Amino acid sequence: MSDDLTIALDAMGGDLGPDVAIPGADLILQKNPDLRMLVFGDEARVAPLLKAFPQVRARSEFVACSVWVAMDDKPSQALRRGRRVSSMWRAIEAVKQGRAAAAISAGNTGALIAMAKIILDTMAGISRPAIAARWPTLKGESIVLDVGATIGADAEQLFDFAIMGEAMARCLFNLERPTVGLLNVGVEEIKGIEKVKEAGHLLRESGLPMEYIGFVEGDDISKGTADVVVTEGFTGNIALKTAEGTAKQISVYLKAEMNRSVLSRLGYLLARPAFQALRDKLDPRTLNGGVLLGLNGIVVKSHGGTDALGFAAALKVAVDMAENHLLEKIGADLAAKQALMGRFRDAEPEAGIAG
Amino acid sequence: MSDDLTIALDAMGGDLGPDVAIPGADLILQKNPDLRMLVFGDEARVAPLLKAFPQVRARSEFVACSVWVAMDDKPSQALRRGRRVSSMWRAIEAVKQGRAAAAISAGNTGALIAMAKIILDTMAGISRPAIAARWPTLKGESIVLDVGATIGADAEQLFDFAIMGEAMARCLFNLERPTVGLLNVGVEEIKGIEKVKEAGHLLRESGLPMEYIGFVEGDDISKGTADVVVTEGFTGNIALKTAEGTAKQISVYLKAEMNRSVLSRLGYLLARPAFQALRDKLDPRTLNGGVLLGLNGIVVKSHGGTDALGFAAALKVAVDMAENHLLEKIGADLAAKQALMGRFRDAEPEAGIAG
Repeated sequence: MSDDLTIALDAMGGDLGPDVAIPGADLILQKNPDLRMLVFGDEARVAPLLKAFPQVRARSEFVACSVWVAMDDKPSQALRRGRRVSSMWRAIEAVKQGRAAAAISAGNTGALIAMAKIILDTMAGISRPAIAARWPTLKGESIVLDVGATIGADAEQLFDFAIMGEAMARCLFNLERPTVGLLNVGVEEIKGIEKVKEAGHLLRESGLPMEYIGFVEGDDISKGTADVVVTEGFTGNIALKTAEGTAKQISVYLKAEMNRSVLSRLGYLLARPAFQALRDKLDPRTLNGGVLLGLNGIVVKSHGGTDALGFAAALKVAVDMAENHLLEKIGADLAAKQALMGRFRDAEPEAGIAG
Repeated sequence: MSDDLTIALDAMGGDLGPDVAIPGADLILQKNPDLRMLVFGDEARVAPLLKAFPQVRARSEFVACSVWVAMDDKPSQALRRGRRVSSMWRAIEAVKQGRAAAAISAGNTGALIAMAKIILDTMAGISRPAIAARWPTLKGESIVLDVGATIGADAEQLFDFAIMGEAMARCLFNLERPTVGLLNVGVEEIKGIEKVKEAGHLLRESGLPMEYIGFVEGDDISKGTADVVVTEGFTGNIALKTAEGTAKQISVYLKAEMNRSVLSRLGYLLARPAFQALRDKLDPRTLNGGVLLGLNGIVVKSHGGTDALGFAAALKVAVDMAENHLLEKIGADLAAKQALMGRFRDAEPEAGIAG
């Protein structure tokens, strides 16, 4: 299935660099043994790990890089130092050159976006990329975008986020018609921001074959009301981090309460498999792997603090996106949108479509 | 302490109206027996409840109203039908007339804001009110505003939210110098939205004696990094609902897991006090009571779906705000700000202060 599929790995990203990336690659090779890797990183650190993980060594080509992006580099610093030579740059470049079907990095998000934009360029009709995050829900899993690639989005950019997120949902969830919702507030009479309402108008009226279900509110995300939840990057980033913070808060409470008495500790021991199942459900590692959407190439961002299991989950996302032809799906939808929008604009000159 | 303090109650708001409001009033009178109430509502529904709760009857004056705002009324509908005559309007009006120190309603938020603005008007220098919500944190409790009174805010409005939220924190938490943070994202090099950065500049440089700690991210809210978290209403509303949704999601997971096996059920029984303590900590009723800030009067919004315990908690917020002179505190801070801003504007003409 994944015969000959090659993924380019920036092995130097994240808090632990190759100590997570190489064991992570080993984990995914156990399930996808036909996968190939192009590994970019510091020879002194990567070579011993390739020796320790012979399956990775057998399925990968290693390219030594003496420069890598630090987690606290500003994007501009990273670009100055790491242009053309850093492991992150070269991993993305391998996608541009057709040597890899996707690139993955656990490095600095800002640097990754900046480099990916320069190397791969945005797709025709897309002005700015988005990061799509996987979000656990009561129904399973949803995609939320943008969670912070760019700040602010006008109506047409939100529309494009919907198109790209919907294509990603088809690739990741194997759904034919994922549902799409626009994140909004329900408090005011005139609900929400003008550009969100405009985006809703575009999605409803454009004629694209998309299962647009209308506005959703913050608590709809975890309910799984929509497979794809669309918002601009500032709000999306704050929603994502607020949810992470709340989950963490409850687990701290729960731990403290279960330790408070002998009986509660005993109860905890008896119910340990239940608590383990809860932990698994909330384990951010299993849903690791944000996708940079809107570029002429697949770039996956792994969480900087994850371990091998989390890195392997992000690698799996890269594989799914490549195997299911994410870019072709988005490209076809964007082309259809352009054709329909031409008609739409002619038909409704006063629709007030922003930029 | 609260001798002679009178709270005006719109008894018809919320899903259950007086069936929650009157028992809620009874609960707070058990702790604050000197409190007085002005109760506005439908005589047919309220009179039997006043009979059932003699303590409330003894401490309150009842004003029969034959009109009330429905939960699904649009603000414009509510204003058309309920102007001058509805229980909501008359409760707010009692504050304007000096007959009550604060008004409380569990009714329609949009209608409450619209009526409060008309009756009480915004404070000098404040263009739009905000709703401040109480948020449970790992350190105890914080205030987050705006959670949806208005959409969007420029730098100076965010600054005003900080002033008002800080005054509320002094009243509610009995802190002398609550810490204040601006909600922002940490992903991009140029962090966040221009107006948030401008607001940070204003807060840092204005010279107001405020413990401004800088930008905070979404996960800082539940950590309790700041006593007051400031953001505009769209993002604040989505953050609040996202957190509520996440808490609900985890409690659904937990319940399902604890029911999955005989052992886990037994464990649950043994640890029941711990689970009860967890439920109490996450109980939204104990932190009920949002405050409309920026008006010439205190108006408290109780959650529409809460019960008597929750309504009593919101009543307690109204009492705390009145007893601790919220409006005088905000007024003094706004006056100090105006004086300082004059100097600030003269000193830094190019600071680019919006609106």
